[in-house]
Amino acid sequence: MRTIKKRLLTPGPTMVPERVLEALSRPVLYHRSPEFKEIFLDTRERLKKLFRTDGEVLILTSSGTGAMEAAVVNLFKPGDSAVVVVGGKFGERWKELCEVYGVRPVVIEVEWGRSVNPEDIEKAIKENPEVKGVLVQICETSTGTIHDVKGIGEVLKNYPDVLLIADGITAYGVYDIPTDEWGIDVAITGSQKALMTPPGLAVISLNERALKRLEEVETRSYYFDLKKELKNQKKGQTAYTTGTSLVVALNEALKMIEEEGLANVAKRHELLAKATRAGVEAIGLKLFSERPANGVTAIYAPEGINGQDVVKIAREEFGVTIAGGQAHLKGKIFRLSHMGYVDIFDVLTALEVTEFALYKLGYRKFSLGDSLRAAMEVIEKC
Amino acid sequence: MRTIKKRLLTPGPTMVPERVLEALSRPVLYHRSPEFKEIFLDTRERLKKLFRTDGEVLILTSSGTGAMEAAVVNLFKPGDSAVVVVGGKFGERWKELCEVYGVRPVVIEVEWGRSVNPEDIEKAIKENPEVKGVLVQICETSTGTIHDVKGIGEVLKNYPDVLLIADGITAYGVYDIPTDEWGIDVAITGSQKALMTPPGLAVISLNERALKRLEEVETRSYYFDLKKELKNQKKGQTAYTTGTSLVVALNEALKMIEEEGLANVAKRHELLAKATRAGVEAIGLKLFSERPANGVTAIYAPEGINGQDVVKIAREEFGVTIAGGQAHLKGKIFRLSHMGYVDIFDVLTALEVTEFALYKLGYRKFSLGDSLRAAMEVIEKC
Repeated sequence: MRTIKKRLLTPGPTMVPERVLEALSRPVLYHRSPEFKEIFLDTRERLKKLFRTDGEVLILTSSGTGAMEAAVVNLFKPGDSAVVVVGGKFGERWKELCEVYGVRPVVIEVEWGRSVNPEDIEKAIKENPEVKGVLVQICETSTGTIHDVKGIGEVLKNYPDVLLIADGITAYGVYDIPTDEWGIDVAITGSQKALMTPPGLAVISLNERALKRLEEVETRSYYFDLKKELKNQKKGQTAYTTGTSLVVALNEALKMIEEEGLANVAKRHELLAKATRAGVEAIGLKLFSERPANGVTAIYAPEGINGQDVVKIAREEFGVTIAGGQAHLKGKIFRLSHMGYVDIFDVLTALEVTEFALYKLGYRKFSLGDSLRAAMEVIEKC
Repeated sequence: MRTIKKRLLTPGPTMVPERVLEALSRPVLYHRSPEFKEIFLDTRERLKKLFRTDGEVLILTSSGTGAMEAAVVNLFKPGDSAVVVVGGKFGERWKELCEVYGVRPVVIEVEWGRSVNPEDIEKAIKENPEVKGVLVQICETSTGTIHDVKGIGEVLKNYPDVLLIADGITAYGVYDIPTDEWGIDVAITGSQKALMTPPGLAVISLNERALKRLEEVETRSYYFDLKKELKNQKKGQTAYTTGTSLVVALNEALKMIEEEGLANVAKRHELLAKATRAGVEAIGLKLFSERPANGVTAIYAPEGINGQDVVKIAREEFGVTIAGGQAHLKGKIFRLSHMGYVDIFDVLTALEVTEFALYKLGYRKFSLGDSLRAAMEVIEKC
């Protein structure tokens, strides 16, 4: 009775703007047609602008994990070593990918919710001079934590043979990231996060150094063969059938980001994150991350409350899909996303459903509306 | 920066569910095709259920005003008299329609925001025994006020020659109205209100008494010829080209109402209205109506604040379209709608934008979030 709408506030897939849905519903294009080729090349150019890179940007028809796999399999030889920052579920994914492809991971374990210290990266490289790359998340989505990739880039300026490979799946389109300037050699993102497009496409950028490495390494994947993709994509083609409708949709989403302006998009996400943090802290909740990201806020469930129950009530009784914790954080945290096609009224909705769910679960150490007040004060002042 | 979405919270047109938009975007049907005929007949049946009438229900391709005109021009002869309740902009519309078609309006002026007393209707009929009908709004949208149409129906039981003609444009789908039981002979609604469909279709119901009157009166309109429509629509046809895609969309919207259950739909609207009223009162605002409707809440702008400025800031700075006052109420009131495809998070958004706009305009006799707290307390208890 209280709600009749479905609202999607997870850190991916995220809500897709009507304008992008319209683009998605246009007649399907043949992936070898001149019409699609033009859109594909235009989309690559727009992605280069988004990444702020003069390097190459390739579009893969896969989830973001596919692009992570492509990075590992195309840029490292079996027996190579790579520093892997593991501070959450997605750091673990880098490690697992290394193991599958015979890359030795030099793991820097970071307590989940904490941010890696760039000095620890340097230390690991010094101890393992054979290291060929650093694999890290810009935002570790599972904990809502930012890693200091800019700082890591600074460190790596002294190690020209070590590629900085950054998973920016929940960072590009949330932040305005100068990929080249920060010294990120390879950056990755996915369509279904801040790029406001349904899942199905991944993006990987490669700068000069990464392209050189690509030439040196024999690819061990058929589908994720970046050399083959590069050759094709320069001409507006793809090696295999790409998700044509998703590309058309992504093109529209990128236009929206350009129209709003990437700096404004980043400022909006910053405001949404600040309002969310102020809101949850006002009702006595604690942020999980020591360096919280602007795309998703991870929050400790209060003492005695299972975070999964917050998620369940939000979804089942209020039609709002938020995210729980992953792995050992399951039940301990829940996550409110404010990434992509999200504005102030959406984050206020996320706080409202959080309050209702906590009340329902018996956590009543606040008055209804307290988180709203705090968040609205942040918004009002901006 | 704060908002990137457009939100429509006016008393019509209202937000249209994704499911209805999908139906609207299906391939256009030919209005004489068997396929459309079936949908048209089905839609008429669903409307009969919505109206809870055993009478006939006709679909007109026009705004609601078209159906009001159809009622006047088809059910009254020139020189006939009709009692007209004028308590707002839409009461005035009845009066104007009477004047255009040579029907003498016996006007009951009701102060805007007040509800007509059924006894005054009886008094008017006694004083004007030649009266052939009573024209009234169930909800006077311009003031957000409910008229006691049930009470008027009681009165009219003693006057079998007086038709009760009720404009239910912002009432059907907000309330569960037993049209026959209340003695409403002719009821009218439009697609773009609680029926969650874009503008373009009107609906008019006629019971036995109304159908008898229809036979007795020579229609003076070509487009709004209800006799011709009735003959056609019984067979699933329309006299002229109807809005086929809108009918398909309306059919889907009616299915949604049936799935939720009309009683639940009415309860939801009641909750949304209660929460809105509690919210605005908590920040020191006064309701305009003495008998506020469940579909739209009219609110006095605070002393020294122009209601139009609230509307302007909401739209221009926050992307939320709310409604101002009409005619002499322009600037004095503003209206928050909670009609149709609306749930608790939408009414909370309406309160949020109200608070932000008032703060911006210098009315700060409340703390941010006060209206939210009050509304959330209402919601939480339900």
